[in-house]
Amino acid sequence: MIKTEMIVIGSEFVSGIAAEERSSLLARELSRRGCVVRWKSAVGDTQADIEKALLQAAGRASVIVMFGGLGTIQDSITRKALRRATGVRFVLHEKVLKSLEESPDDLNRPRPANRSGYALLPIHAEIFPNPSGPVPGFGLRWGGSHLIGLPGNADPIERILKESVDPYLSKQFKERSAPLQAVIRTTGLAESQVHPHLNDLTGVRNPVTLGLIPGWAGLDLCFQMAGRPSAESRERLASLLDQIRKRLGEAVYAEGNEDLESVVGRMLAASGLKLAVAESCTGGLIGHRLTDVPGSSAYLDRSVVCYSNRSKIELLGISPELLERHGAVSEPVAAALAEAVRSRSDADLGLAVSGIAGPGGGTPEKPVGLVFFALADRDGVRTSRERFRGERKTVKLEASQKALDLLRRHLIIRKGEKGF
Amino acid sequence: MIKTEMIVIGSEFVSGIAAEERSSLLARELSRRGCVVRWKSAVGDTQADIEKALLQAAGRASVIVMFGGLGTIQDSITRKALRRATGVRFVLHEKVLKSLEESPDDLNRPRPANRSGYALLPIHAEIFPNPSGPVPGFGLRWGGSHLIGLPGNADPIERILKESVDPYLSKQFKERSAPLQAVIRTTGLAESQVHPHLNDLTGVRNPVTLGLIPGWAGLDLCFQMAGRPSAESRERLASLLDQIRKRLGEAVYAEGNEDLESVVGRMLAASGLKLAVAESCTGGLIGHRLTDVPGSSAYLDRSVVCYSNRSKIELLGISPELLERHGAVSEPVAAALAEAVRSRSDADLGLAVSGIAGPGGGTPEKPVGLVFFALADRDGVRTSRERFRGERKTVKLEASQKALDLLRRHLIIRKGEKGF
Repeated sequence: MIKTEMIVIGSEFVSGIAAEERSSLLARELSRRGCVVRWKSAVGDTQADIEKALLQAAGRASVIVMFGGLGTIQDSITRKALRRATGVRFVLHEKVLKSLEESPDDLNRPRPANRSGYALLPIHAEIFPNPSGPVPGFGLRWGGSHLIGLPGNADPIERILKESVDPYLSKQFKERSAPLQAVIRTTGLAESQVHPHLNDLTGVRNPVTLGLIPGWAGLDLCFQMAGRPSAESRERLASLLDQIRKRLGEAVYAEGNEDLESVVGRMLAASGLKLAVAESCTGGLIGHRLTDVPGSSAYLDRSVVCYSNRSKIELLGISPELLERHGAVSEPVAAALAEAVRSRSDADLGLAVSGIAGPGGGTPEKPVGLVFFALADRDGVRTSRERFRGERKTVKLEASQKALDLLRRHLIIRKGEKGF
Repeated sequence: MIKTEMIVIGSEFVSGIAAEERSSLLARELSRRGCVVRWKSAVGDTQADIEKALLQAAGRASVIVMFGGLGTIQDSITRKALRRATGVRFVLHEKVLKSLEESPDDLNRPRPANRSGYALLPIHAEIFPNPSGPVPGFGLRWGGSHLIGLPGNADPIERILKESVDPYLSKQFKERSAPLQAVIRTTGLAESQVHPHLNDLTGVRNPVTLGLIPGWAGLDLCFQMAGRPSAESRERLASLLDQIRKRLGEAVYAEGNEDLESVVGRMLAASGLKLAVAESCTGGLIGHRLTDVPGSSAYLDRSVVCYSNRSKIELLGISPELLERHGAVSEPVAAALAEAVRSRSDADLGLAVSGIAGPGGGTPEKPVGLVFFALADRDGVRTSRERFRGERKTVKLEASQKALDLLRRHLIIRKGEKGF
């Protein structure tokens, strides 16, 4: 494992104006490559701070990855800080100059007067071409460490890593072993329900670190084995995961980064079953999540977002009397929606959601956050209800997760029965 | 403005397993309170690293905000690091102990054997009760700085800031002035198109820092005035924003944090017009975004996610011949979808999207990323097309943004005509 630090440059990241999703993704990708990020600094576009961050990291890390700051209008600041911190001479790299001249203007970046400034890079640096624009990255030996500069706009970041950073690292480090890590993702469990199952498996005498990360998608269990990966530690982690999977049972829906829509998509594709959805309070979120999965058109026929009563009547033939008697947010209406969307599309499965996302619309009997679910197949329909807490967006997210999870659990049973 | 640094504690943040959305939000909220975050460090659950991060920040910042690390199962590590870095004695705080005994078990957190450990906090610290659980935060004078510890699970983070951190800061700092900041959000503009409009407005002689942040939602222009806010700088920023608004015209859709769905929602609500949507490649995303806005049921009637050809025929009466002749991804089909969803729901506006999100399904004539848009009103239908680059999820996001933007621009014209 290679001790790695990241320096994210840009006032917008420090002040929270921009979210750090991309730097999180970069950290994850680096860790997968054996460059385990153990410290991350975000600093503004200030020469002194960038310089301090570089010097501070230099004493501690084998690899320092600088993200951003190379192509902004304040780019000279980062270059000045780099020059002062490293003491390395900057020269115009001919190859970069040439490609700058040859490349057409980037739609998303102006051709500044000093465009050639992008070619001003540390002497002896290895240049990493940027697939997303004219500002390249670089790799540089700096004392006992390696300094890698990556342009903030490289998208997808995986591409520059694969095409340039991987070959560079392979030349510099004979062996790169990623730490043994695993993530088990669960739905429907609270931390307090999980803890008793883990106490005897992790602990002081076990070289496993466990982190519990709760969120709207459920509770994620993150495991990391200490030390260099070995046959023994691999086996140990595998057997630990096995035991946890057994203990938590159906609550486990995925491992690693996989999300619930991908899992459900895989199961639907394997089963050959077709799905139709009727959404009220989730407003399209279930359809959106299902269609984020490539190939989802093979099993998703439609999702009817019937937000008004009128649309429930017109699009799915729900009877006005039923709506009148029970209200749109009710078990009978959820059941009718699931049955109607299934039978009208001749799909195998019909999934429906109706609830009160808030902040308005709640009553003592039907408070904000109350959501009814229904899942219909050719044999009938099953319903359930749940009360979610939190604001509108959270209610929608958690309701969509619950709905997809009902589908997943249904498909597990079907799989057992039909053996697809 | 108070020089502030943040220290985010938790391996999952450093290694990128967890995204840093919440720490970004915290940074934004702190900056709004005059505590301008200029350095952010994320460190793992390692005593030495936490200690180093604290000492490093102590020399530079007036306020140090530690986020997380207080309530995890590794909580003693953070406490040890704090004790060593500050040299402050830790004692059991009676008030916290009492509230721990009185509070019921947190659903999401077990009652550990050493639950009283949560009450072990620096002597003389001011305790910040945590609305989300038993682990409190604290504020502490440390040399010339103030150290604020906030539990990572406090949700919403705004609440503990308002209830505890604000009063604490007010006692310690007579004057807290947030820096003058502004964000202008645009669609349909590339950085290179914006630059010429800004060159004479910002620059060396102007005390304005400008950051351009491109993303799927468009290009955000972030302005920050240097120095202490004054009547003069306020006026200067206001006049700058005025000029930029004028120059960029309709491309400006919002200011600050507002998103496009909220802007469109506001316009729809004001106009009294009703909307129906037909989505193909966006799969429900447009409906999802529109319904993220509280009160959207007042103007959104339905969104028909007709993913299959069959669903386009059955739900919206699209003729099989039209689909056969032009293909589902075509201008005539997009137009037919918009007209059908509008007229069938008797809505004033019908918005439709049909495209190829990829990665499969592209042809030389209709490549991945090609999307057709149509907007129908009672007078007719207008169509447009755009080719998006990027992976499936990005195509969906950018297509949804473009669709909502067409709606926004249409509503601006309508507003001019009808004066609603």
